[in-house]
Amino acid sequence: MSDAPSAILITDPDDPRIAPYRAVRERDVVGRGERLVAEGEVVLRLLLSGRCRHTAESLLVSEKRLERLGDLLDPLPPDVPLYVAGQSVMDAVVGFHIHRGVLAIGRRAPDEGAAALLAGLPERALVVALSGVSNHDNVGGIFRNAAAFGAEAVLLDGACCDPLYRKAIRVSVGASLITPFSRGGAGEDMLDALEAAGFETVALSPSGDVQLHELARAPRTALLLGAEGPGLPPALMARARTARIDMAAGFDSLNVAATSAVALYAMTRL
Amino acid sequence: MSDAPSAILITDPDDPRIAPYRAVRERDVVGRGERLVAEGEVVLRLLLSGRCRHTAESLLVSEKRLERLGDLLDPLPPDVPLYVAGQSVMDAVVGFHIHRGVLAIGRRAPDEGAAALLAGLPERALVVALSGVSNHDNVGGIFRNAAAFGAEAVLLDGACCDPLYRKAIRVSVGASLITPFSRGGAGEDMLDALEAAGFETVALSPSGDVQLHELARAPRTALLLGAEGPGLPPALMARARTARIDMAAGFDSLNVAATSAVALYAMTRL
Repeated sequence: MSDAPSAILITDPDDPRIAPYRAVRERDVVGRGERLVAEGEVVLRLLLSGRCRHTAESLLVSEKRLERLGDLLDPLPPDVPLYVAGQSVMDAVVGFHIHRGVLAIGRRAPDEGAAALLAGLPERALVVALSGVSNHDNVGGIFRNAAAFGAEAVLLDGACCDPLYRKAIRVSVGASLITPFSRGGAGEDMLDALEAAGFETVALSPSGDVQLHELARAPRTALLLGAEGPGLPPALMARARTARIDMAAGFDSLNVAATSAVALYAMTRL
Repeated sequence: MSDAPSAILITDPDDPRIAPYRAVRERDVVGRGERLVAEGEVVLRLLLSGRCRHTAESLLVSEKRLERLGDLLDPLPPDVPLYVAGQSVMDAVVGFHIHRGVLAIGRRAPDEGAAALLAGLPERALVVALSGVSNHDNVGGIFRNAAAFGAEAVLLDGACCDPLYRKAIRVSVGASLITPFSRGGAGEDMLDALEAAGFETVALSPSGDVQLHELARAPRTALLLGAEGPGLPPALMARARTARIDMAAGFDSLNVAATSAVALYAMTRL
């Protein structure tokens, strides 16, 4: 522990310095406002990297884990407190067992809005646009796929859940920390912004007009995906080209994150 | 309720007739042996369909839900008891809130073994082979993708988790009930069986020799996938053709279920 720069030992779960870590799960439910919670080494590495738009506010690491973090803390700015606690103190503060032993509180970068985000993208760009995707596993999975296939940004309408919710960050393996996104408004507003920025929107739907591989890709393309049960609203479908992924007879059910992986893969091949 | 054929009203959580539903979650942990638990209408519909290799032993439905099941119970054999209970009795028996209000206990079909399973497949067949995939979300997701893209069967080595575990069935949306599979033995045994049945095995790995779309597909093809962290053991990789899915620089991390979706999609295009 003595090797770590400026580690601050916490022995009392009620220590006010670690108040932001208190009852992490409950805070998730009511929303975290300007903050985010990052868990685990892989995610923390991305939070501390130059690719992350958000900034670390503090870290809370278990004593055991601290010795094995290696170079992970090298990029930690000197003014960011590194709190260290025994596992039992850590679990007591957080409210459940943190088996990864690494947590961070981050401060979110402001949402610049869809128009500004799209304006900053290159001439050839791939964007994922989500309408009504409110499941954190799915949103996290979609961000992971977007990062893996090099999508430039993700847009989410206001009916989507927060990609910086703790679970969404974890499922995305940190992709939602590094992939630019904007969230809010109605699905129509999102399509307006895409249209104004010269994006062609391709809506993925089992009832799509063409098969995915038949598409000719526009330089600026947005893949539009809806929630699994209801799918995309007809009003949004009507404003987009529509594409489908053909499936086996009798089981035409693909998870929306799996759909995003297939569609992103297909786009990178066009 | 009076419309339902032979519904048996349960008012006492300790009623011995519904003992198999007691503490469902705990039973999951220790394994269910010859039984399985199916949740929700979509899954139950598959369990009662002619496509399911397993048989329903009994159903437990909440009073509220029973009226809305429509034709779902039409294929229910007359000797399968349909238990009906109030939501609070149901939750008390099961040990957590069953918000879908529909549960079934099924009896598993015996595992015929990989060799017999493969022998029964058509000359042109696509199989998914899993080594060490022990996460129920991933196994469930892979079965869902296998069914959606029409894979004929799934093989799992003994280090994989059980596809008929409650959560795996749920995540697969019932696909693990209708997709033939065999599970057990070492990864090498699985490759032996595939080889003997004339399958060419394609191992998916970030270090694969060719890109996925460059593959020429053999009539009988098996897609081999390993666990996310460690990946496939080198000994298995050495016995297969290897293919990769190219990803963006700096984030080469694709979930194994997402990988299966992309690989199955690519195979159905070959």
